[in-house]
Amino acid sequence: MHFTIQRNKLVEAVNDVMKAVSSKTTIPILTGIKITALEDGVTLTGSNSDISIESFIPAEEEDYQHVDIRKTGSIVLQAKFFSEIVKKLPSETVDIEIQENLSARIVSGSSEFNLIGMDPDEYPQLPQISEHHAFQMPIDLLKQMIRQTVFAVSTSESRPILTGVNFRIENDELICVATDSHRLAMRKAPIESGLIKNFSSVVIPGKSLNELNKILEEKNDTIDIVITGNQILFKTKYLLFFSRLLEGNYPDTTKLIPMDFKTEIIISAKEFLQAIDRASLLAREGKNNVVKLTTYEEDNQIKISTILPEVGKVEEFVPCESLSGEELKISFSAKFMMDALKALDATDVKISFTGAMRPFLIRPLDQDSILQLILPVRTY
Amino acid sequence: MHFTIQRNKLVEAVNDVMKAVSSKTTIPILTGIKITALEDGVTLTGSNSDISIESFIPAEEEDYQHVDIRKTGSIVLQAKFFSEIVKKLPSETVDIEIQENLSARIVSGSSEFNLIGMDPDEYPQLPQISEHHAFQMPIDLLKQMIRQTVFAVSTSESRPILTGVNFRIENDELICVATDSHRLAMRKAPIESGLIKNFSSVVIPGKSLNELNKILEEKNDTIDIVITGNQILFKTKYLLFFSRLLEGNYPDTTKLIPMDFKTEIIISAKEFLQAIDRASLLAREGKNNVVKLTTYEEDNQIKISTILPEVGKVEEFVPCESLSGEELKISFSAKFMMDALKALDATDVKISFTGAMRPFLIRPLDQDSILQLILPVRTY
Repeated sequence: MHFTIQRNKLVEAVNDVMKAVSSKTTIPILTGIKITALEDGVTLTGSNSDISIESFIPAEEEDYQHVDIRKTGSIVLQAKFFSEIVKKLPSETVDIEIQENLSARIVSGSSEFNLIGMDPDEYPQLPQISEHHAFQMPIDLLKQMIRQTVFAVSTSESRPILTGVNFRIENDELICVATDSHRLAMRKAPIESGLIKNFSSVVIPGKSLNELNKILEEKNDTIDIVITGNQILFKTKYLLFFSRLLEGNYPDTTKLIPMDFKTEIIISAKEFLQAIDRASLLAREGKNNVVKLTTYEEDNQIKISTILPEVGKVEEFVPCESLSGEELKISFSAKFMMDALKALDATDVKISFTGAMRPFLIRPLDQDSILQLILPVRTY
Repeated sequence: MHFTIQRNKLVEAVNDVMKAVSSKTTIPILTGIKITALEDGVTLTGSNSDISIESFIPAEEEDYQHVDIRKTGSIVLQAKFFSEIVKKLPSETVDIEIQENLSARIVSGSSEFNLIGMDPDEYPQLPQISEHHAFQMPIDLLKQMIRQTVFAVSTSESRPILTGVNFRIENDELICVATDSHRLAMRKAPIESGLIKNFSSVVIPGKSLNELNKILEEKNDTIDIVITGNQILFKTKYLLFFSRLLEGNYPDTTKLIPMDFKTEIIISAKEFLQAIDRASLLAREGKNNVVKLTTYEEDNQIKISTILPEVGKVEEFVPCESLSGEELKISFSAKFMMDALKALDATDVKISFTGAMRPFLIRPLDQDSILQLILPVRTY
């Protein structure tokens, strides 16, 4: 293997595949990045037990030469060193050549590194996925749907299925749901699912989706999503992102969502978020970051309050756009509420309660493609 | 005590005094910020065992009112909560009023905090310093002199005196020296010391100087430096920064600095620094981040190299502006060299060697107000 490559293209691709490389792996070959040079370009691969990422740098693109391939071949190099080295090399191009004994000579300007490599034949094969159960969607929309749900997955392994986000297709809609059993985030969007017959419901680890969101660039392009038994592949022009799926049945969450309400508030999301954020300065020092909401219908406002013994107390008053229904005092996690409000991306939100002990909904005004649900906390 | 204050002024002053507040202190009152309102303005104080900081917000400045003092008085509030609260308050002004039982009511917009305070009479008095042994210097120069020396202090408590920077006045020059006994940084500058009779040499904890440098703003102004037995005070218009001094005699470092040299290199500081930085990618994984420098007089260049067993090796060639004297192979800490080069702020540097086992000097070309000294490392 021998090629000369534009350093910035190499750095980009290395940064992408590094998201899949863990220094903690017990499989030595997976501490490396696999580099494969073929006639049409260079492919980098990084992998761990959950995700595998492949990034392709074409030799030529739009009459611009990114790589000059002199000899095809393959090697695996220590990810930690290789990634730091390419970032700091002095010249705009980097020359990489395999020498005897799997040693790689990396030259850029007057800098020369020799790294001892590993045998590429020992590197695991990426999953083979048939492209039958595929659908396409805009990258921007996928990123948004992930961001609006993934924060609500469980971080506890006591019910592993809840550490993932449920992707479900129903009636030409993609529905994403995450819940840790104390709160729930749901987002749906129409997709063209005409080609998908067998796909109904999969659960993708939250960690995988977080890494995917870091790699995907906000751009006006589409992404292919392909599913087989236990793997999902997200595929853009030059990037393959594989994740394992979580096994087991995702709970039916539709029954959790209340349909009739006793108190409804319409409020500025920003003002409400800032009031909760300030109340949380004291609340988070307490046991569980709980704040109390009290409605004042006569003043058309709510109060957010919390007391931290031996430190003090806080009272925040927030005016409502509208406030209707029964009087209410309810306690909930300030963190859950802040997460939910941030995910909604809305100017005004509607909060619908069914009493102090029942789950309540936070939704944008006049939009039912997204909802956030929070269970209240009992305080005595 | 009762006053209304511009929030941004309060936030600035709180940020300054927070540099002196430690959450780890065993003295409960020092977890607080002392707030004192007098007719002319509000003073905040933070303190730990090493440093004390006092920041003053004048009631009026240049016809602009920062504070409306309604009632003078004093209180101590939990620094951790108070500092976070003032940053997040919603309005441009904050009203602070002491109520009964040392409780402070903090109101801004529709937000109201009540914090339980502590008795200001229990707060320790700041050191009383007579202003006899004072001198003045530009803030920018002081900041630069600290930055160019403080990194070289010892982090080990085995010789406590070496954890400080030696400030010495000789022949109308301020000389700052720091050494951890493996390297040394020295910077001097002329000052007007006509008024100082008894001041000769003090040692200021490196940590104090790092905090001072964070607080002082780069501006075209002067700072007063006042010394008594065991305290030093840095004083600007609205800020008092006290630090304890280290006790003991600072070693005479003048003898350490070699005067005659066998090999001299003049080299681009930036190219040299980048080459060392890359070599360090492998060197720092080894025992002690050591790189080897080899001179090649015929090519007018040097080589920086290092080998990391089982990983690989690196060779960096750097052209010299000039290279004269005996051939040399010498090993030294890449970190020490990078620290020294960054501190010099020079385009080209002169490196003067007296053999592979002797300390060597790094200086800017044609400027003797600053020098960096490094002891080589034996490699076998």
